[in-house]
Amino acid sequence: MSKKKCVVLLSGGLDSATVAAFAKSRGFDIYALTFEYGQRHEIEILYAKKIAHYLNVNAHEIVHLPDDIFKISSLVLSSGKEIPITHESAIPSTYVPARNIIFLSIALAYAETVEASHIFIGVNAVDYSGYPDCRPQFIEAFQKMVMVGTKSGVEGNPIIIEAPLINMTKAEIIALGTSLGVDYSLTSSCYNPSPEGKPCGMCDSCMLRKKGFAQAGYEDPALQR
Amino acid sequence: MSKKKCVVLLSGGLDSATVAAFAKSRGFDIYALTFEYGQRHEIEILYAKKIAHYLNVNAHEIVHLPDDIFKISSLVLSSGKEIPITHESAIPSTYVPARNIIFLSIALAYAETVEASHIFIGVNAVDYSGYPDCRPQFIEAFQKMVMVGTKSGVEGNPIIIEAPLINMTKAEIIALGTSLGVDYSLTSSCYNPSPEGKPCGMCDSCMLRKKGFAQAGYEDPALQR
Repeated sequence: MSKKKCVVLLSGGLDSATVAAFAKSRGFDIYALTFEYGQRHEIEILYAKKIAHYLNVNAHEIVHLPDDIFKISSLVLSSGKEIPITHESAIPSTYVPARNIIFLSIALAYAETVEASHIFIGVNAVDYSGYPDCRPQFIEAFQKMVMVGTKSGVEGNPIIIEAPLINMTKAEIIALGTSLGVDYSLTSSCYNPSPEGKPCGMCDSCMLRKKGFAQAGYEDPALQR
Repeated sequence: MSKKKCVVLLSGGLDSATVAAFAKSRGFDIYALTFEYGQRHEIEILYAKKIAHYLNVNAHEIVHLPDDIFKISSLVLSSGKEIPITHESAIPSTYVPARNIIFLSIALAYAETVEASHIFIGVNAVDYSGYPDCRPQFIEAFQKMVMVGTKSGVEGNPIIIEAPLINMTKAEIIALGTSLGVDYSLTSSCYNPSPEGKPCGMCDSCMLRKKGFAQAGYEDPALQR
């Protein structure tokens, strides 16, 4: 019998590396999917490649999207906006319009094409930046849309969206990943890293990562870069 | 007061040309969005440009997507599959995985970025090829997902998905477009046209168009190519 297949959204960050290792530990063959959309922290794509290699994925597709359509976000370099140092408001300027909606949609097509039964996404609604498309109610609504909007869905065999980290703290995610052997030196979380991948230590994403490692009781190997 | 803005998914076909003219007649400024995904009928992009010019849109974004992720569809040239001459089954091989899900998702990002309030899509569930992502229940489920998955949605000002043709016959669509002054010589519906854009006259899409023009009582100007 052939192995189960899944698509994993792999950003190069800590959460998606953990979720990829989790999917692998559940016996899935991994079809990794990474997006280049003019993000300021484009170096994360390099880390996505490192993690994909480390986890020995079956395939790794890197999809380019035009930054024009995301230019309202400070996370997109061509927006000309600055990354906020602290968390500003309910939904910060780093919000990228419809990002996880687009990523999951393209993952759906990829999954139907390679005949994967599951899509894994590392969204988290506990230690997170307040993005609407990281919350359980979004994942549930997306799943319902999959049931009626895809061939596999209407044929009674819908692709399942798995978000296993959604209710975990960052410390719990790091503990899980460490138990699965994830090498976090191969990940990058910073919104505004140096050209060499050194984290800024001040953005929302750096703060969440720092807190997570402290609470989990581990050193963050990415700080040694 | 500035004019209302909308994003229109413009494929180069008859339905999307009609829906664009409809949006314009409702007083919207149009931000057109067209996709290149390795479709066999890539010439439709040329027709999308013609219609965009004819309707004097505010902007026209053409987004490239990798054909790799759609290769299960006979509509994608690199699939190596043939276009069926007649309608085969409930969901034919021309089904492109998650196509309208992806198109609407990218339209959402574009709409949030240009601050458009509406997205118009020319899907139709009467004279259509049986694709799941052309039906009312899909549009409704997508709209619900928008409410919880986007910034504008959670802030109580969701982008509205408009599918005004969804319950019309092809003849009704052609009559509507004609009343709005659409020049259907600037559209291409065929799944398998000649390099010059001459329709094959045999595919599902050609048959639906032929029936529509006959029932509406008009000549199809695209047949003169």
